[in-house]
Amino acid sequence: MEENENSDGDNQEMLHELDESGQTEELVEMFEELPTPDVVEFLTDKPLEEVLAHLRELDMEDQGRIVSDFPPELRLQLFHALDRRHIARVFGHMYSDVRADLYQQLEKEEQIELLPYLEKKVREDVIILSAYPPETAGGIMNTDFATVFIDMTVDEAMAKIRKDAPSKDSAFYIYAVDDAMVLKGFLTLKELILAGPRDKIADLINEFFVYAEVNEDRESVAKKVEKYDLAAIPVLNSLSQLVGVVGHDDAMEVLRAEQTEDLERFAGVMPFEVGENYLETSSLRHFRKRVAWLVGLAAVGIVSGMIINQYRNILEQFLILAMYMPMMAATGGNTGTQAATVIIRDLSLGHIGEADWWAVVYKELKISTMLSCCVAALTYFKIVFLSFTNLLPDSFTLEYVGLTISIAIAVQVVASAIVGAGLPLLVRRMGGDPAVVASPAITTLVDITGLLIYFTIATAMLGIA
Amino acid sequence: MEENENSDGDNQEMLHELDESGQTEELVEMFEELPTPDVVEFLTDKPLEEVLAHLRELDMEDQGRIVSDFPPELRLQLFHALDRRHIARVFGHMYSDVRADLYQQLEKEEQIELLPYLEKKVREDVIILSAYPPETAGGIMNTDFATVFIDMTVDEAMAKIRKDAPSKDSAFYIYAVDDAMVLKGFLTLKELILAGPRDKIADLINEFFVYAEVNEDRESVAKKVEKYDLAAIPVLNSLSQLVGVVGHDDAMEVLRAEQTEDLERFAGVMPFEVGENYLETSSLRHFRKRVAWLVGLAAVGIVSGMIINQYRNILEQFLILAMYMPMMAATGGNTGTQAATVIIRDLSLGHIGEADWWAVVYKELKISTMLSCCVAALTYFKIVFLSFTNLLPDSFTLEYVGLTISIAIAVQVVASAIVGAGLPLLVRRMGGDPAVVASPAITTLVDITGLLIYFTIATAMLGIA
Repeated sequence: MEENENSDGDNQEMLHELDESGQTEELVEMFEELPTPDVVEFLTDKPLEEVLAHLRELDMEDQGRIVSDFPPELRLQLFHALDRRHIARVFGHMYSDVRADLYQQLEKEEQIELLPYLEKKVREDVIILSAYPPETAGGIMNTDFATVFIDMTVDEAMAKIRKDAPSKDSAFYIYAVDDAMVLKGFLTLKELILAGPRDKIADLINEFFVYAEVNEDRESVAKKVEKYDLAAIPVLNSLSQLVGVVGHDDAMEVLRAEQTEDLERFAGVMPFEVGENYLETSSLRHFRKRVAWLVGLAAVGIVSGMIINQYRNILEQFLILAMYMPMMAATGGNTGTQAATVIIRDLSLGHIGEADWWAVVYKELKISTMLSCCVAALTYFKIVFLSFTNLLPDSFTLEYVGLTISIAIAVQVVASAIVGAGLPLLVRRMGGDPAVVASPAITTLVDITGLLIYFTIATAMLGIA
Repeated sequence: MEENENSDGDNQEMLHELDESGQTEELVEMFEELPTPDVVEFLTDKPLEEVLAHLRELDMEDQGRIVSDFPPELRLQLFHALDRRHIARVFGHMYSDVRADLYQQLEKEEQIELLPYLEKKVREDVIILSAYPPETAGGIMNTDFATVFIDMTVDEAMAKIRKDAPSKDSAFYIYAVDDAMVLKGFLTLKELILAGPRDKIADLINEFFVYAEVNEDRESVAKKVEKYDLAAIPVLNSLSQLVGVVGHDDAMEVLRAEQTEDLERFAGVMPFEVGENYLETSSLRHFRKRVAWLVGLAAVGIVSGMIINQYRNILEQFLILAMYMPMMAATGGNTGTQAATVIIRDLSLGHIGEADWWAVVYKELKISTMLSCCVAALTYFKIVFLSFTNLLPDSFTLEYVGLTISIAIAVQVVASAIVGAGLPLLVRRMGGDPAVVASPAITTLVDITGLLIYFTIATAMLGIA
């Protein structure tokens, strides 16, 4: 997780030196030439007035590019600090998806106030992109793509691309559309360069292209980008018209966010939004993200108490049973969590499906039997060598009680592995996302099954009801 | 996690229909035109002889492209089924990174046997790429990049690109090198197209480029690709010579794999290799991935048992304490896991650092106090309304014992949150990766602190040593 900072660390140092020695001209030149994230890193540490002063020295295109890469809060601060006409011009040069996000962050009145200042093309673009729900393809797509018409020649297409000059660096594909903007195919810039000037676009395009629908879930879109190794995926509306593209960078962000969400859910924390920051999030919000699982599972814990109450006679006579209760519960919870993790991983990678139900159970049976032998052996030796006979009635030997507890723990390990592996499969079979199966839920569930197993075996072997 | 299969589902159906109706010519045409992953999906379901028969109908370039996308096992099977000369020709058209991976999968004798059949250029490329450790930039880079010389004009550069025609589709950047292959800068194909034919490459290139060093850790490389939204990152050796590139697709794979590893570690499972499959991995290997944590933590469980043994007097008199032990342990484990998860998330996103130690502890104190009020209230009402007085001596009321247990659980929630949040911070401070902090370890640790808290408070309030 460590980051190698060799190159960008140097850039930061250089920027700071130029800034401190007042070499404004050189600094502006660096702002134009350095990778955008390095400029942003330098600027975000500065007070707002300095950021504004630096931005004003740049042309609008660079301002739009740099502001597009700012963190959302800084973009919003900037919006409030600049006059409407300036903002409107920056808007014109921002990345279309980021600009729509910023627009959505604004208050209703601010939105209405801004719109008249925007160029007609920008205004329409902002309104259309803002209309899509954020969890869909439409919500993450941008409109910075390059199109040519299907009936053009390569020469004509080149001329159109030179004229349009799509602003975002990542415009790597050229999309071929008909007069109604219906997407007919795509070609890479490389294919365009390799073709002869008189060749027809219609003959060059890849007609079997992967696309997303505008209402498609954003994770499904991102997975297509991943599966097909795309630099960008075109987004079509219900009329098959090209309405946007989702770049590989935005797809990667979606996949990373979904994976982080899975980890949070697995730990029984309701997922935070992308960009939410631990220290800046209010304690109350943190509380809300955790309380449901915590109190819910504590309530289910009633059952554990009832089981123990049911078996209080045997517990009174064999207090040694209480000594090994925590270890049994913990081992069960750990086994279940381990099994659930590997199953959730392989379900999400598509390595296993619902049909593999029995194969998984059989496999877990084998794995957990091996594990249970180790744990049972450990438990047996622990009891025989480390326990005290004063915790059990005279008529029983430590060896026999040790055998009883070891068998109970062995059965618990096997049962927990089956529960842990089975639960995600069950959720998938019922049409849900297996990643919602939380480790705390598994732990609580196997606590209950564990106590039942423990006391049932103890009662049977130690002969007291 | 559900996949939208609209487009590729149709493609599979079409391929199957063409295959079953024996329309070989049309099928071959589809193999050439469809996205590679769709062809691979179709072929991987077939018996090996059919795969071979289909491949033989394609030209070498398509064979290389399709075989590059095969799963590793199938690639290896194919290698063993084809004669050396055929394999050598396919090798010449495979993606350079995949080809080096396949080469490394071969037995020593097979490698030696294959090399004489390869073209000199391919042979050198395979040997060089295979020499880098897999966890470095060198181990994941490919050599399918396009270079121009820094002293060329745009026209000359275009001519060189047309001649070289880099084979991999994702060659989106053009790298400008000097005569010693030292990287001087890069430009996008779009910038090349937009420039005038007489313009000098030296004037067009971006000189401040992000790059990776050949020995750099692959995760660090992938993070640069992510941070700078790159389609590909150039890889330089110690002489600043361009030796390869890592594409955004390979970077995404690395980041996804590292995140999956984090989830596995968090669940106390030693990470599997990329591509390892649950059902195909042997039970013994699964066992080995889980046994250390499981038995290790069960061994630590000794301590829990010793604590309970220490307090057996109070437990004998207040058997009700045993009833609430599992709930207390589970709630502590859940609280600790939740806190650890949000901290690990924000540490890895860079939102918090070591310096925030006290801020985190203070924040967790606030959050967990709120949580503990809820859990304690629940516990109190549970005890008062659902318990039985026969579990405690006559001289104590259920209300007082309920208060005792509720306070103990409240303290346990706060302590567990601090332990859960503090452990990843501690590991980071000691220079480790916070993601190694496993949920089972936290659970076991707070089991022990929990029992100490529980019995200390019980002893103090119920007045028996």
